[in-house]
Amino acid sequence: MSGQPPIAELGRRAKAAARVLALASTAAKDDALRAAADVLVERSPEILEANGQDVVTAEAAGTTATVVDRLRLTPARVSAMADGLRQVAALPDPVGEVVEGWTRPNGLVIEKVRVPLGVVAIIYENRPNVTSDAFGLCLKSGNAAFLRGSSAAIESNKAIAAALREGVAKAGLPEDALVLVEDTDHDTAIEFMRLRESIDCLIPRGGPSLIRSILEHATVPYVIDGDGNCHVYVDETADLDQAVDIIVNAKMQRPSVCNAAESLVVHEAVAAEFLPRAAAALEGVELVGDARAIDIIGADRVALASDDDFGREFLDLKLSVAVTPDLSAAIDHVNRFGSGHTEAILTRDLNAARRFTREVDAAAVIVNASTRFTDGEQFGFGAEIGISTQKLHARGPMGLRELTTCKYVITGEGQTRR
Amino acid sequence: MSGQPPIAELGRRAKAAARVLALASTAAKDDALRAAADVLVERSPEILEANGQDVVTAEAAGTTATVVDRLRLTPARVSAMADGLRQVAALPDPVGEVVEGWTRPNGLVIEKVRVPLGVVAIIYENRPNVTSDAFGLCLKSGNAAFLRGSSAAIESNKAIAAALREGVAKAGLPEDALVLVEDTDHDTAIEFMRLRESIDCLIPRGGPSLIRSILEHATVPYVIDGDGNCHVYVDETADLDQAVDIIVNAKMQRPSVCNAAESLVVHEAVAAEFLPRAAAALEGVELVGDARAIDIIGADRVALASDDDFGREFLDLKLSVAVTPDLSAAIDHVNRFGSGHTEAILTRDLNAARRFTREVDAAAVIVNASTRFTDGEQFGFGAEIGISTQKLHARGPMGLRELTTCKYVITGEGQTRR
Repeated sequence: MSGQPPIAELGRRAKAAARVLALASTAAKDDALRAAADVLVERSPEILEANGQDVVTAEAAGTTATVVDRLRLTPARVSAMADGLRQVAALPDPVGEVVEGWTRPNGLVIEKVRVPLGVVAIIYENRPNVTSDAFGLCLKSGNAAFLRGSSAAIESNKAIAAALREGVAKAGLPEDALVLVEDTDHDTAIEFMRLRESIDCLIPRGGPSLIRSILEHATVPYVIDGDGNCHVYVDETADLDQAVDIIVNAKMQRPSVCNAAESLVVHEAVAAEFLPRAAAALEGVELVGDARAIDIIGADRVALASDDDFGREFLDLKLSVAVTPDLSAAIDHVNRFGSGHTEAILTRDLNAARRFTREVDAAAVIVNASTRFTDGEQFGFGAEIGISTQKLHARGPMGLRELTTCKYVITGEGQTRR
Repeated sequence: MSGQPPIAELGRRAKAAARVLALASTAAKDDALRAAADVLVERSPEILEANGQDVVTAEAAGTTATVVDRLRLTPARVSAMADGLRQVAALPDPVGEVVEGWTRPNGLVIEKVRVPLGVVAIIYENRPNVTSDAFGLCLKSGNAAFLRGSSAAIESNKAIAAALREGVAKAGLPEDALVLVEDTDHDTAIEFMRLRESIDCLIPRGGPSLIRSILEHATVPYVIDGDGNCHVYVDETADLDQAVDIIVNAKMQRPSVCNAAESLVVHEAVAAEFLPRAAAALEGVELVGDARAIDIIGADRVALASDDDFGREFLDLKLSVAVTPDLSAAIDHVNRFGSGHTEAILTRDLNAARRFTREVDAAAVIVNASTRFTDGEQFGFGAEIGISTQKLHARGPMGLRELTTCKYVITGEGQTRR
């Protein structure tokens, strides 16, 4: 339907490009990123026109205003995409780093060298800027980007991909550094997840139904960018002024993102003092809580929370509240309901901080700061392809380094094994 | 049938034990390993008797002598298993290592800390020593071992697991540090691969049919210990005396293992001189080769190889031979037929070595040494749980460190995000 070759052939093209990119110098990759940025800006009119078609289609289909806003591009947004590529060009290249090296008693020299993964596949939803952002991170790390966006953004994605490919080719690298799958039907997505001969790593960026589909169907290796059901635990020795600022920031500063707090857990010793202040500061946030939270804050402000509420990532101005008898109960609560993303403790007690950071099982455990800091930019990685909530390969914010693997290079002088 | 609780309940027990093990001190884990080793030796009579039952069953079923030999335990083999546990106790503990750490401009301190994976599941075949070896590596790295061996070794595995569990309990750690699945039917294996709520990492140790089953059914994260179709490429500048020694070592020293060479690739400039010498030195090895290899060595010594031969891991005294016009063709051949395990170049030319190590896509690339060195012990890791041929998480020999993940610990003093 799209006029593109079959997906297996697209995969082979990406793989062939990946072989060239893996050996490209940092200078060549950076030139290609800057050239792609320039063409993106030059092609703004075509990109905005294509985006206009997607927006009209979305509005005609009755899509919500929030979703249409995510889809919509403006000259400023296209310009920001180009700036993003130039910023990635300025980051250090992870490829070729000798991570470690040693010499064995028999004289063999072993070096562990950072190399690109090869073809990085990404399945994503409506935001067209992901097409450019993902391409940039993949190219910088020596990988080909094999992208499958949503049907709602297909015209925008095609226009953006055409501009980026043109820029890469101008700079002398293979245009298949970015291969966009134009066929957005469900069966193609399943086929995509099973292209083991060409995909080295798949990063799904989407909701629970996409993750379920990956778990069920994917045979390619993948890294899951999962939910964030993040907790802020206010310990009995917490600085309560600070605690109010932190829960307000963690919940309200940007409620729609994965590192926003979804649950407040409070030690019973400070609940009576802290919770009414927190509830007042969280004006505009719907609260659901356990019986003790209701006793303290009042049933007019807090509704009774179910286990389902405690397990849910609201991604909205809604917060669950639990009161626990002690630190151990708080840790149990967090480990039971958390999604392994980010969990914070607010305390002045060193032993409490130590126990919480050791015993809570999550990608990021924070002491006395907002959960919103779990982020590639905030960590200083310069950019982020996602936040892994799995334990293998990458855990937490994934930057350029997480788009690489390592290879052992072993050098001898005729050694054989006895 | 086995009288054990359902597999989901076994998984919950392993998970509960893993929480305790993750916080156990190195001293406590080492004590448990030594206690387990002692009980293993004490229980030798029971273990050997149980193993005798497995051997009788296997022989009655007409199992080949090689396979029965893998299954059979002797007092010396039980003793070697115990020694293996004591050696693991003496290795450094990877848990708690601060892999890196830095301070952000806003004062947040970010540390990346090595932590256990949790529950490590292993599906394996006949060798009963894997029960003890895998348990030891998992315990040392703070993980619970959730093991599913083959039906052929079930009585041996039960006896070994009982001894190890008794040892761990004596030392004060939870006996569920080792949970053996006693039900060895196929449906249970599938259920095992899908226990996402309790398994943090699955390492399948088996042949292609197990790997296919994992790709098709597993929803838990896994690391594949795959085939080794390893090549030795003899470049035009190779030291040919050394090359004869290396190919003989790589092919013949232990042909049944994954890092043995399966294919010899020779630059045409030295093929006429090298191949007859190599063929003579490889006495007892069946050769299959391309037309040029046959021209040089003679059709009485080399049969014509198919693409299937070039792609096959023989695991036996059989070797494929190809003659290539140059280094580029050799690299293409290796990348086409290799399985991403170990590939060697023999050369005195620095640029050839550089190109081969950069352009060949494998876990280990070796210059002037035998492929047999891709091994956890040979790398100095002290022990090995397998050799990963995948690119995510771990690539190449997997030691204790590859049985861990990392957690970010972020410490602030009230920081919120703007």
